[in-house]
Amino acid sequence: MDGRAAPHAGGALRLRGPRRDTPVDAHRLDRARALSTIVEPADTPSEGRPIRWGILGTAGIARAAVAPAIHASRHGTLLAVASRSAQSSERFAADLGIERTYGSYDALLTDPDVEAVYIPLPNALHAPWTIRAAEAGKHVLCEKPLALSAAECRVMQSAAELHGVRLVEAFMYRYHPRTVRAIEHVRSGSLGPLRTIRSTFSFVVRRADDIRLDAALGGGALMDVGCYCVNVTLAMAGRSPRTVQAVSIRHPGGVDRSLAATLAFDDDLVAQFTCSLDAARTESFEVIGRDGRLEASQAFLPGAATTRALWTAGDGTTTPFEFAGVDQYALMIDHVADVVRRGEAPRTGAEDAARTLQVIEALHASARDGGRPVTLQRARVTSGSVGSATIHEGGA
Amino acid sequence: MDGRAAPHAGGALRLRGPRRDTPVDAHRLDRARALSTIVEPADTPSEGRPIRWGILGTAGIARAAVAPAIHASRHGTLLAVASRSAQSSERFAADLGIERTYGSYDALLTDPDVEAVYIPLPNALHAPWTIRAAEAGKHVLCEKPLALSAAECRVMQSAAELHGVRLVEAFMYRYHPRTVRAIEHVRSGSLGPLRTIRSTFSFVVRRADDIRLDAALGGGALMDVGCYCVNVTLAMAGRSPRTVQAVSIRHPGGVDRSLAATLAFDDDLVAQFTCSLDAARTESFEVIGRDGRLEASQAFLPGAATTRALWTAGDGTTTPFEFAGVDQYALMIDHVADVVRRGEAPRTGAEDAARTLQVIEALHASARDGGRPVTLQRARVTSGSVGSATIHEGGA
Repeated sequence: MDGRAAPHAGGALRLRGPRRDTPVDAHRLDRARALSTIVEPADTPSEGRPIRWGILGTAGIARAAVAPAIHASRHGTLLAVASRSAQSSERFAADLGIERTYGSYDALLTDPDVEAVYIPLPNALHAPWTIRAAEAGKHVLCEKPLALSAAECRVMQSAAELHGVRLVEAFMYRYHPRTVRAIEHVRSGSLGPLRTIRSTFSFVVRRADDIRLDAALGGGALMDVGCYCVNVTLAMAGRSPRTVQAVSIRHPGGVDRSLAATLAFDDDLVAQFTCSLDAARTESFEVIGRDGRLEASQAFLPGAATTRALWTAGDGTTTPFEFAGVDQYALMIDHVADVVRRGEAPRTGAEDAARTLQVIEALHASARDGGRPVTLQRARVTSGSVGSATIHEGGA
Repeated sequence: MDGRAAPHAGGALRLRGPRRDTPVDAHRLDRARALSTIVEPADTPSEGRPIRWGILGTAGIARAAVAPAIHASRHGTLLAVASRSAQSSERFAADLGIERTYGSYDALLTDPDVEAVYIPLPNALHAPWTIRAAEAGKHVLCEKPLALSAAECRVMQSAAELHGVRLVEAFMYRYHPRTVRAIEHVRSGSLGPLRTIRSTFSFVVRRADDIRLDAALGGGALMDVGCYCVNVTLAMAGRSPRTVQAVSIRHPGGVDRSLAATLAFDDDLVAQFTCSLDAARTESFEVIGRDGRLEASQAFLPGAATTRALWTAGDGTTTPFEFAGVDQYALMIDHVADVVRRGEAPRTGAEDAARTLQVIEALHASARDGGRPVTLQRARVTSGSVGSATIHEGGA
């Protein structure tokens, strides 16, 4: 997962292959495009100088993936890192080649040269530190899931708007060209009306004191890995479910160690996923329509290798969509530059996160109640109160 | 699916490869065995002359797979076919090379030369015709699911025992050496404690008058294809779930056109499956333990091609289990000969079928009640009343 090991496709993706404005036979054309879909470095659209980044915390994901990705991006410069422990931030800075270190998150937020912060803190700290960063005038890239609830997402977005900064959720798999292409393929109707979406994500957490097993910090299988399954399901479906239910297996620490979910949508679509922090590593999705299906393994963390998705049409013929290896974290950093410098809409912004968290909240409620079906309220636009979130410094 | 096109591995399976009685390193040995697992024709154990078969009905599966499989088996002879229409049975007999035809099922059952019957009738007719065949002294191979309920399975088994005949459910995928090996691998503990079992089976039924969409005949996605998912889940788990729930999408004819199920077991195991008669063809299972996982696609109808299952150990290394193509229907016919001639216990007998149907009944109850969790009663041995099933002649 070292971002620097991966070739980096640059700021924008360009598809090589036949394209026509008025397809005569959409299916055939689509397959021709798919067969020749090769991602190449392209002209980078983001204007102006690179974004100057600070990182709040020294989490493993920051060290392994996001700090290297900022280094790799032509649109980012990694300027500063903060930790509650000065020693920890200094070691991190030395290892990663970062100029400035701070012994508290607040101190970093007062650095006028830092334009944007990346927040890899435990889930329960996402909202308070995003709001504090916004108040300090910093753009925010915050780890997934963006918050503990849909309401928190909206409060965070309100804070960002109030202070004139941008907010992006660090759902890095959404920046991989395979994910982009898969969602585009499914949403284009190539599989016919959707019937079933299946996904799974699990791995084994071996340390008993891992923050992912800590209920107070917003841990658990659904929050840590199930959120990918919810997110990819909603992206493929293009809408939210009507009713959800979940069965969970509890860890002694109070979080769900494993969870199995069912999401019932309108129009004859049902989705299922399983997630676990106590099962061998697996990560995949399969989208099944009446007229075909699309599947991918290593769906969320494909590393830097060549990846593919398999499209099987209704007649049984299978077409692989192949993609050269990329650093999906660096593509995400490039996207933040486009959002900040060029005013683009975030691909994974607070509204997307709120939709995911609305489902997560309903699944938690169902699991707590033994699997009772829970009906989702239709999306309401809530202008949350910015002042309602409180801050407790914590994390790495 | 023409059984004659497939090489036929003979009555018994012999594994070529290293075997030791006292494994020193079970994991390493198991992998060595797996890598060299090649199924070869072996000495056929079944004694005496071939079983003389009759078929009740001219269903597509009989024509495409089971009649050719009886022809292909060295332990079976296809003697007679019956249909409610004499014309239909004569055409079937001419096409398949069958000596005797009957214009009613009862007439075939009076043929003293027929020793065993294969019953491919609609699900609702399985119990009555199995019981009638048993009363006529015929052994029975009956299509899956064996009955409409676990109680019916037990009544059928009681009838078979009363009349001294054997009863086998035609779950042909259980006779494929890949299935045998996969179940053995999972049950041996090679994946560690089981955490998740995922499976799916769907295809598109295009004819509106297809019997699989007929509620009165015991149709629906769960009965027709979901039964494979339930069966493979129970075989892998080695036990029945504690609680199940299901969400279904109804066909105007009253059956479930699609269904998504969750099965919660003791000991931190959860299973999920989706099935549909209205979604593109897909069929797979994935068993995930704490220390590894095993997956297979084309899991139930692999055809005559070489097949494989993929075992990924906890360290991420993947070992393919490869199997030469076989005719799983012919292996099933061979097994019936072993059951009848040598007194072997049926691999897919009435008790196995009753466990599957107990889960199916609970899933139907949950789906009818909007996904409410349904707790299974612990298995009870019921000595059913043989006389309680009534007979209505129907089917092909």
